Order: sequence, then structure tokens, then C-alpha cells
Amino acid sequence: MKLMNSSASLEERREDFPALGRRRNGMPPVYLDNACTTLVPRQVMESLQECYANYPACGGRRSRHWFAEEVSDRIEGNPDKGIKGSRRILAEFIHAGSENEIVFTLNTTHALNLVALGFPFRSGDVVLLTDKEHNSNLVPWLRLQKAGLIRVDYTVPDDRDLFDLEAFEGKLKNGRVRLVSMGHTSNVTGYTLPAREIIRIAHQYGALVLLDSAQAVPHQVIDVQDLDVDFLAFSLHKMCGPRGVGVLYGKKDLLGRYLQEEEGGGFVLEPVFLGGGTVADATYSSYRLLDPPECFEAGIQNYPALIAAGAAVKYVQQIGMERISAHEGRLNRFLTGELMNRYGDTGWFRIFGPQDAEQRGGILTFEVKRPNAVRIAEELSRKRNVMIRDGVFCVHSYFNERFGQGWTLPRSHDEHRMVYRVSCYFYNTVEECRIFLETLEEIFRERSYL
Amino acid sequence: MKLMNSSASLEERREDFPALGRRRNGMPPVYLDNACTTLVPRQVMESLQECYANYPACGGRRSRHWFAEEVSDRIEGNPDKGIKGSRRILAEFIHAGSENEIVFTLNTTHALNLVALGFPFRSGDVVLLTDKEHNSNLVPWLRLQKAGLIRVDYTVPDDRDLFDLEAFEGKLKNGRVRLVSMGHTSNVTGYTLPAREIIRIAHQYGALVLLDSAQAVPHQVIDVQDLDVDFLAFSLHKMCGPRGVGVLYGKKDLLGRYLQEEEGGGFVLEPVFLGGGTVADATYSSYRLLDPPECFEAGIQNYPALIAAGAAVKYVQQIGMERISAHEGRLNRFLTGELMNRYGDTGWFRIFGPQDAEQRGGILTFEVKRPNAVRIAEELSRKRNVMIRDGVFCVHSYFNERFGQGWTLPRSHDEHRMVYRVSCYFYNTVEECRIFLETLEEIFRERSYL
Repeated sequence: MKLMNSSASLEERREDFPALGRRRNGMPPVYLDNACTTLVPRQVMESLQECYANYPACGGRRSRHWFAEEVSDRIEGNPDKGIKGSRRILAEFIHAGSENEIVFTLNTTHALNLVALGFPFRSGDVVLLTDKEHNSNLVPWLRLQKAGLIRVDYTVPDDRDLFDLEAFEGKLKNGRVRLVSMGHTSNVTGYTLPAREIIRIAHQYGALVLLDSAQAVPHQVIDVQDLDVDFLAFSLHKMCGPRGVGVLYGKKDLLGRYLQEEEGGGFVLEPVFLGGGTVADATYSSYRLLDPPECFEAGIQNYPALIAAGAAVKYVQQIGMERISAHEGRLNRFLTGELMNRYGDTGWFRIFGPQDAEQRGGILTFEVKRPNAVRIAEELSRKRNVMIRDGVFCVHSYFNERFGQGWTLPRSHDEHRMVYRVSCYFYNTVEECRIFLETLEEIFRERSYL
Repeated sequence: MKLMNSSASLEERREDFPALGRRRNGMPPVYLDNACTTLVPRQVMESLQECYANYPACGGRRSRHWFAEEVSDRIEGNPDKGIKGSRRILAEFIHAGSENEIVFTLNTTHALNLVALGFPFRSGDVVLLTDKEHNSNLVPWLRLQKAGLIRVDYTVPDDRDLFDLEAFEGKLKNGRVRLVSMGHTSNVTGYTLPAREIIRIAHQYGALVLLDSAQAVPHQVIDVQDLDVDFLAFSLHKMCGPRGVGVLYGKKDLLGRYLQEEEGGGFVLEPVFLGGGTVADATYSSYRLLDPPECFEAGIQNYPALIAAGAAVKYVQQIGMERISAHEGRLNRFLTGELMNRYGDTGWFRIFGPQDAEQRGGILTFEVKRPNAVRIAEELSRKRNVMIRDGVFCVHSYFNERFGQGWTLPRSHDEHRMVYRVSCYFYNTVEECRIFLETLEEIFRERSYL
């Protein structure tokens, strides 16, 4: 009861989400796949529709007319009209020093690739990762390693699966680490790295730090200046926002031109895609790019979604990031307690990452090591509209290492080991967690696991 | 009157566009900036909202639950449920042989860059362009030239500004042309290249062809198999579609793996951005990519927009591409006739490209060579909500060559030469063209040009 009371006003927020009003077989959705994508409140939908209906034109100050101005004002801001643009709203949300440090991308993956492909690596540089990186923060580096440009190295956690600062510093002492690139909050375990400490140490050894904060920004207060992080990537679709909007934050000096270069200047981070909107001037034989962030945003952008990104930030800010964290923590403690009480002693049920729910945000990933452990996600969805994720969550490397290579490949019916992920957001309730728990229990019984 | 009658049912379509219902200073919008971005009908908005409201989850068959299935079914199709996915709808729209030849991107610029950055050029290869390429089909090639990989060459039009097939063949005969990359329909002149002939000749000389069809696909029937084009790029925002969706069409053999490579295979076109959704398997030291089109679509995509892209195609197909072409032609003949009657003899007014309106689709770009010729677009918008484009339309190279280098740089108040572009779509009317003509005349009189 105490749980219900403390989140009473969050429950009212559920009214904002049209998807929660759906019914299938007379039952509501129980959406627990938020680490992938969150639901969208009507406030964000209305912002999108407003743009599509009233000023469906281009932004970026490309055209000089009524509709185009309405778009550009809402993205780039217009102090004369008292309009704060969404680029500024995003900058303030992560406490960036300037809105010019905000590059809009399609998603976090694109943002991470912008760094991997644009960073001025020297041959032999080391990029240091953790053992649990999403493919989006692994494969771009492996490609550079394959091309012979960099070497990829890993720092591993301690016995309790917590970040090992000492081991990390060891890597920096002994290697030619140029860039530390890490998942800020793991999409497998929900564990958040001690980013501030990591960055402080990395800088001591002259390495820069890129954080894949796709799972961090939607769930906690992020202050890029306090962190002193060099690059940071995240997506709006994981925080009630429009789809198709990612952000690459980069420190001004790193996104910007080399000041020492006179002729047109070069970039610390070279833009990857070039064309419309990135060009200051061009002839048949030469070109000069615009300053950041424009030089990184090639072609006509998804303007309605960039505007709605501002609406999404306002929405989650109104709820409060601390309150979001606290609520997710409560749900995760409840889920963890119930699951461990029921199955903690079975030997075939295990929760990934730190066992303490406090350390795992809104994410709870568990292993079921039993015959025919597949299709539990489908069953949960079919029986009670409970939506969770199965598989490897784009972290093939970690599971291949842990379970033996080949485990991540397409599975057969008699698969004996499966991993499932439940992920909560502020609109989830204890009641929804109960439905998940009950239905899971039912499936386990049907499969004679209990 | 004949004009009005023949487009009567197109006029009814105007009801579908919420933006046309707007009023400012008591007057409706006169939107003539369609070569940049078109307006959006409620049918497409509803498709977007339907996804946001009812199944705001991820696609790509990543999750196995209710909402995710609803998304994936509508993009990738589900024959069991009789659902044709938007990828298939797009493939059929351009008459592609397979939906696997359709790669979704953020926009045309990204699609063109995928080819520029992924194509297996050999040192010394020539990429052949026209003299009027958009920066998106120029700067990516200039960068490769700057890096020493390729050489960029141009084929120039004949005296009437029409494509010169003989000159083109000469370039192929004498050079090491590996790829011909051309704007299918010019965004400056509206002129459509004889693409089929160009491709036939290019193939004779062993060159492949990439068409930047951003200005072609929304306005005419495109059959990639009949054209025999190798790569073709376009965007949905120029054809009543959602923002943030471009398409790269590529022939199966060109997008796909090299068949001769055993170990995992390589790609003819190497994907640029890697990460979530592109990976079949990965370890800490190696990775294997998925087959096309997945390997090109990194990270969580803009799923509602991908679904709405299908709705946009259905919408324009229902109107009929031939009818769209014919209507644009009628409006352009009317505009061209009126403008040339009024200003054709002044010496300071000139229309770009072929003088015959028939050859310019829905685009009419004109030069005003008079003192203080700037800000006519702003004036048209301010006086009568007439929205047209000014500037260089991202074709800096052509204007620098024609008007002298530096002309494209930020201009001063006393600028004596400006270029403006009017671009129509099927919902525009003769009445709207009259409002534009009247307001332009008023501005010309106020500035004492007449």
C-alpha cells in the first residue's frame, strides 16, 4: 500500500499515454520493454501533429517564409519572440554549456558512429570499452581495429559485477588509450558506471571519454559539465519522445574547428555525411563546411520530431528525473524481491549484474536455464499482454563470452537457456509488476519448472 | 477556366491538408516551396498518430510482443495477416524487384552518402556529375577527390541547357568513369535528365549509375527496373510523406554480399554506420553483419514514419503520378507564360534551364538582376503569405561558376542579383499562381523595377 501511495500522482500520468488505454482480449497492455522504447504521451504527439498540421516546412533557416520561420524558431529558438528552441531545451536538459554542442542524429547508434568515424585516431591508439557494450558501442570500434587503425581493449568488472576503478586505471597506465567509450548505464544489467570518477581518471592519463548514455539520460539527472564528459550520446525514443531523434553532445572544442588552421579550418571530429545544410560554400573543385552543429546534420531533418523532442524533455522534467529514478528503484526492488523469493534457490534462475536492485535502475534481466526456456516473452504477451524483451539485447559479445560462442545464434526449440529483460519507466505500476510475476509463474508451472 | 475544370478534383484534395486551412492576416497560405518540402495530408498524419498512440514500440522484429509485432508487421509485412509492409509498398512504387532492395535512411542526403562512403572505389576512378548538382551529390564526391581516392568530372549541357548525350558519351570514352551520379530532376531548373539513355550508355562503358531522384520520384512514374538504374535515392518529405524518411534503392547484387567470399562474405556496398540492428553476431574481437537491407539501418529507426511512408505512397498513387505531372506542367506553363509576357523583355529577368515550361516539371527558378533584389521571398510571405525559396538551393558550385565566385556567400543589402524558385505540387492552383504573380508585380513596382 505504501508503494501505491508514494506513486499516486505518477499513476495519474498514465492518462497521458494513449497506448495504455488499449485492450486486447479485454485486458490492458503491461508494457515492460522501456529500455528499448518508451510509450509516448499525448503532449508529445500533439507537438508533432501541431508541426505537421500548421507548419510542415523545412527548418534550419533554409527558407525565408511564414511556415519555415515557425519551424526554425521552434528548433533554433527566437529570442525576439520569446521562443526557446528545442536545441536549447536539450542543451539545458543535460546541462551543456552551449546549444551548439547539441548535434541531432537519427538515434544513439548514429551518434556513436559519428565519433567512431570522425575522431582523429592515430594508428595504434587504444579504445577502451567495458565487457558489456551494446553492438552500437562495439562494432564501430571492431571495424576500426579490423582496418588496422586502433586496438580495442576491455576493462572488466569486479566479483560483484561492479566497475573496477583500479583495474581501469591499470589499463590507462599501461596502454595507449586515446578514447574510453562506455555504456553509461548497461542495457543488460541496468548498472550505472561511476562516470564522474572514470572521466576524472581518463583525463589524468590524457584519454577522452565518450558515454553511450542511451539508458542513462532518460532515468537520472545528467550534467555533462559536472561529469566533464567529452562526448555523450542518447535518444529521445527512450524518454517519451518522438522516434528518429538521437543526440550527440560534444564539447565545443571537440566538435569545433581547429583554431590554429587558417584556411577554412579543419575539424577535430570530421563530419561523416556531407551535403545540403552542411555546406557554407562550394565550387566544382572545393567546399567549405558550416560550423557545428550544422556540419553534422546533413540533408532535410526530421523537423517535427526535433520540435517534439523539446516537448518530451519538458514532459519528463515536469515529472522530475529524481522522481523517475526513485520510482524505478521501488519497482525494481519489488520485482527483485519477489523473483528471488520465488526462484532464487532453484539454481536455474539468475539475475544479471549486481544482485542489489538499488544498483540496477529500472532494468531487471534474468536467465532461465531450463529445457525449452524459449518463447516466454511471446507467452507473456499472448496470455496477459505483458511485454518484455528476450534475446541478447544487442550485446552478443558478452553472452558469447559467458555462455559459449554460438549461443547468440538463431536458436532451436529445445533451447535450454534463455535471457529475458524487464524494464520499467515512471508510468509502470506495482500492479503491472504483479501481473508480470503471476503470468511468469503460470508459465513456469505449465512448463513444469516448479 | 479550362485550367480550373481539369484540376477540379485535385482542388478537392486540398481539404486533406490542414496547413492549407491556416490564415494569417485573414489570408490563406500560398505554399510554393514544394521542391524543398511538401505539405502533409491528414491521411499520413493519421497513420503516424495511429502508431504513436497504439503501438509505440520498436520494429525490425527486435521484440516479440503485441506492440512490437504491430509495428514490424506494418513495415516488413505479414502475409498471414494480409498486411503489406511499407518496405514492400515503397519497392512496388518504384518497381523494384525486391523489397530487400529498399534501404530506409534519414533523407536523400544520407542515402547518397551511403553510396559515396560505401562504394568500393579503386584509386583513380572517375565519378561523373552534371554541372548542376545539389551539394548532397557533389560534396561527398569532392571529399573523396580531396582524399586522393577518385577524380570528379562533369558533363555539361548543350546550348539550350538540355543534357548532351554525345558529350556524355565522350566523357565515358575517354575517362575512367566508374560511377555516374546525377540529379535526376534538377532542383534549380526542374529539368529531368534522359535517365534511361544515360544509364544505357554508362553501362556500355562499364560504369554504374546513381540517380539523385529526390525531385523526380514525387512527380513522375519511376520504374527502376525499366531504367536499369543501379542506385537511386529519394525522400518522403517531398511527396506528402513523413519527415525523416529517405530511401536508397540498390540492385540486389550491389547491396548484397559478394557471393565469392566464403567467410561471412563482404559487401559490394559497405555499410557506413554499424551497431544495433545491423549485426548477426559479435564477439570481443569479431562481428558478422546481417544481410541487406538490415545491415544499412543501424539503431532504432523512426518506425511510425516508416509506416506513414507507406500511407504517403498510397496517397500520391491514388491521385496518380501522371496526373501530378500533368497538373504541374499546366501550372508551370501558366506561370512561365505570365512571367515572360510581363518581364521577358526587361533584360533583368531570366528563367533558369530550358525556356520551354514543358521541360521543367513543377519548378520555375528565375533571376532578378536589379538593385536591391534581395528579400523578395520575405516580402511575398509578409504581404500575401506566398512562400517561395531564394538563395542558391544548395547548388553553390553552379552559381559560383555562373555568377562569379563569392556570389553565393552571405549577401549585403545592396545585392544586385538574386535567384528565386517557385515550385508547385498537385494541390497548388492557378488562383495561387495568380496571387504570387500579382504580389511579385507589386513588389517590382514598389522597388521601381517597372
